Amino acid sequence: MLIYSDGKKWLRRAEPDKTFQSHKGIVDFREVIGRNFGDSTKSSLGFDFWIFKPTLEDYIRHSKRTTQIMYPKDIGLILVKSGIGPGSVVVEAGTGSAALTTALAHFVKPTGHVFTYEIRSEFIRVAEENLRRARVLEFVTIHNKDAKQGFNEKNVDAVYLDVGDPWELAPQAAAALRGGSMLTSFSPTYNQVEKMAAALDSEGFIDLETVECFERRILVREGKSRPASRMIAHTGFITFARKTLRKKPQQSET
Amino acid sequence: MLIYSDGKKWLRRAEPDKTFQSHKGIVDFREVIGRNFGDSTKSSLGFDFWIFKPTLEDYIRHSKRTTQIMYPKDIGLILVKSGIGPGSVVVEAGTGSAALTTALAHFVKPTGHVFTYEIRSEFIRVAEENLRRARVLEFVTIHNKDAKQGFNEKNVDAVYLDVGDPWELAPQAAAALRGGSMLTSFSPTYNQVEKMAAALDSEGFIDLETVECFERRILVREGKSRPASRMIAHTGFITFARKTLRKKPQQSET
Amino acid sequence: MLIYSDGKKWLRRAEPDKTFQSHKGIVDFREVIGRNFGDSTKSSLGFDFWIFKPTLEDYIRHSKRTTQIMYPKDIGLILVKSGIGPGSVVVEAGTGSAALTTALAHFVKPTGHVFTYEIRSEFIRVAEENLRRARVLEFVTIHNKDAKQGFNEKNVDAVYLDVGDPWELAPQAAAALRGGSMLTSFSPTYNQVEKMAAALDSEGFIDLETVECFERRILVREGKSRPASRMIAHTGFITFARKTLRKKPQQSET
Amino acid sequence: MLIYSDGKKWLRRAEPDKTFQSHKGIVDFREVIGRNFGDSTKSSLGFDFWIFKPTLEDYIRHSKRTTQIMYPKDIGLILVKSGIGPGSVVVEAGTGSAALTTALAHFVKPTGHVFTYEIRSEFIRVAEENLRRARVLEFVTIHNKDAKQGFNEKNVDAVYLDVGDPWELAPQAAAALRGGSMLTSFSPTYNQVEKMAAALDSEGFIDLETVECFERRILVREGKSRPASRMIAHTGFITFARKTLRKKPQQSET
Repeated sequence: MLIYSDGKKWLRRAEPDKTFQSHKGIVDFREVIGRNFGDSTKSSLGFDFWIFKPTLEDYIRHSKRTTQIMYPKDIGLILVKSGIGPGSVVVEAGTGSAALTTALAHFVKPTGHVFTYEIRSEFIRVAEENLRRARVLEFVTIHNKDAKQGFNEKNVDAVYLDVGDPWELAPQAAAALRGGSMLTSFSPTYNQVEKMAAALDSEGFIDLETVECFERRILVREGKSRPASRMIAHTGFITFARKTLRKKPQQSET
Repeated sequence: MLIYSDGKKWLRRAEPDKTFQSHKGIVDFREVIGRNFGDSTKSSLGFDFWIFKPTLEDYIRHSKRTTQIMYPKDIGLILVKSGIGPGSVVVEAGTGSAALTTALAHFVKPTGHVFTYEIRSEFIRVAEENLRRARVLEFVTIHNKDAKQGFNEKNVDAVYLDVGDPWELAPQAAAALRGGSMLTSFSPTYNQVEKMAAALDSEGFIDLETVECFERRILVREGKSRPASRMIAHTGFITFARKTLRKKPQQSET
Repeated sequence: MLIYSDGKKWLRRAEPDKTFQSHKGIVDFREVIGRNFGDSTKSSLGFDFWIFKPTLEDYIRHSKRTTQIMYPKDIGLILVKSGIGPGSVVVEAGTGSAALTTALAHFVKPTGHVFTYEIRSEFIRVAEENLRRARVLEFVTIHNKDAKQGFNEKNVDAVYLDVGDPWELAPQAAAALRGGSMLTSFSPTYNQVEKMAAALDSEGFIDLETVECFERRILVREGKSRPASRMIAHTGFITFARKTLRKKPQQSET
Repeated sequence: MLIYSDGKKWLRRAEPDKTFQSHKGIVDFREVIGRNFGDSTKSSLGFDFWIFKPTLEDYIRHSKRTTQIMYPKDIGLILVKSGIGPGSVVVEAGTGSAALTTALAHFVKPTGHVFTYEIRSEFIRVAEENLRRARVLEFVTIHNKDAKQGFNEKNVDAVYLDVGDPWELAPQAAAALRGGSMLTSFSPTYNQVEKMAAALDSEGFIDLETVECFERRILVREGKSRPASRMIAHTGFITFARKTLRKKPQQSET
């Protein structure tokens, strides 16, 4: 349940014996349960608190974070460009706080599945909690395994890499992907992107495309509309590449 | 089927008695049928032509256009922020060339549905063709009707407006939306955004957010990586707003 | 004198009987005086402090502020596009903290002059102090007068407006400008820009151009170079227009 | 003389026995000579042609080009940040089409000077022509010499590098610069920027800053204002660094 009041939002589970406290007063959850989404209740201090069904973005923005999370602008572009949809089976390396994992699970469910790899076991507990809150945990399998040892899955519809050295996973990604399917890699630095492009090329991937995406808020006020003064200038570069059945060029020439 | 050769792509149906001709030679579809995605064939001039399964983006980029189509960067942001997923039932006004329609249908299928409204009947035939090519026509119903007369559907999970005067559809959108659900409106000018914000406010929508999104390609070449020289500077502003069950403020004060 | 240590900078006057104190120790100005620019001295805590001659940007960034100041990216564009150079005589309305005033004076000196108008007398004292620190006060005349009553100067080489309602000064700007010279107006909102364009058109200005300018820092580190994470998303829109000798169209048609 | 008609501009010298021809008719220069800037004349087809005094930007945009020229947005930022003004003596390597040279000469004149180095002698003739048209040739000395052999000038107020391998000129720039003065380097790729940063660091430069600058046009029309659809996405990265009197760290450690 998403609670909204005057520009602020909180993600909370509505439990009858609990209350929600903010600087604008206390909301008694017994007042909330049974109301429809889009309805409001008054806090103890008389402020309106609105009740909404969380969107995918709400789940991601309000997730617990152990790492820098991926932004909606980047997740959205990845969803449109990586060749998946409901029913897809995909693999991800670098679960982190599970922001991308949540989005992937949300859009491949109910018949698809996300297999995600994370070596840092302390992150897995938080990732699971975030996935459970977003109601997609059942569509995700988290492997506590180093993807450099290879992905367990084969013939998957897409592979997503959000790790520091994605080029070391290019062969494993190629082995897991169905022919013609898309690999997506997310990296903050130019140097990573350049190394990744070389690795993808030598693994027989083609149609490489690297993009960066910016989002700017517009402050709309009657008679004085203007862009927001500050924005996120950089999150990361996203590289897309299609797996071919071609043998590696270097090997075929030997 | 997506055909790729040296940076160019074509979307074609593989029919056994046909050929595909380009300036790089002729490809005989009999050579192609039976091959796996990710495999390649030689054209009559000896060039490699690769065969891929089209992604959602491929379908949209290669659709027939009667109008300016929505870009992947904007569609992606809308998917993440508008509160939908597989199974959602949504309404769209302004089918146009069906780019957003295709994306919505792709991600709400197989149990969800898109009801889309288009007054210009000459656009509907092209929209249907694009939806059929993208294999989502069965998940879409096109109404040749002016949405100002109201949407037929009620309690929908999201409403999308891509029309020149979205503020005239704010009451109809409010009537169609389930409480707490998201309205999304796409407009190229500031003036439209400002009028829309006023209309949404008076219809009891809250949590308004307007954004613009930029995408820049990066040309990755070993030792000489740089951003592309040109980019799309503007497509449109996207406004999101949540429907409340609040009566219109103007009315409640009377 | 600009003092630099480990990424931080301070603008100070080197006075022999004073010291400069920071969290990295005390710098005795007697140690500094007599050194060349580009040289360094040790603070009491053993850190290097470097001495530089301030650039125009240093003066602007370290000025005292009573208002939002203009950014180097915007000032630079204005310098190149507004048709001025050493020797130009220009008029400005809205002195504010004198950031643009400083830049204009810096580049029209020693034979040019800036006449600037400011109605808020409490700002003028700070503006004077900033101009004196930047060593350009002698090239500036500050009028404590409302520019709506008209500019005292005629046949000037450029007019700059940085006020909330620039459209109310379009006739006064036209009266002050030499034929063919450039008017520059800086405004944060779209609505101001639209009103200004209409006013300029009716005053016989032509060749209107409105732009916005973004600056993004790049963090260059060997092997891990990337854009900075945050940036200024908006300062203002800049409108340029050339004054013609044409009578106002509205009047000529009566 | 700048000629303007309906959004198009031409830079021409007004010679009494010549005419100017465009698709909107012929303009007789005898009609033009003697008119004030800001005045207009009718072409043979009855269209208005306006006469303006060219700005620095006009000279640059209408210069003859042998190379990619620098954009006003980048030139402006460089002017504000590189520590120069009227009277400065500066050195440039990579004259190219002399766009930056023109701007530097324009703003250091009449008492300052630009010494610029260009190895491709075929470019020098065009550069001279562009500088003459912009009326700044007398403030510029072009050396047809490889700057790797060292700059002739010492104690200059600023050095500008617009060459493919600026890191090879870092020692020469350090030798030419007055202590504490600014080096500016312009490069299109990330890799160049990274190499340059390493070279500057080892030559004792500090306070390195790298930026990129974007300019977006706004189409202002009453009731339908919006950003332009396309823009230049990338020209180059600009690196600024201050010269210290420090010995190179590598050498001092030996």
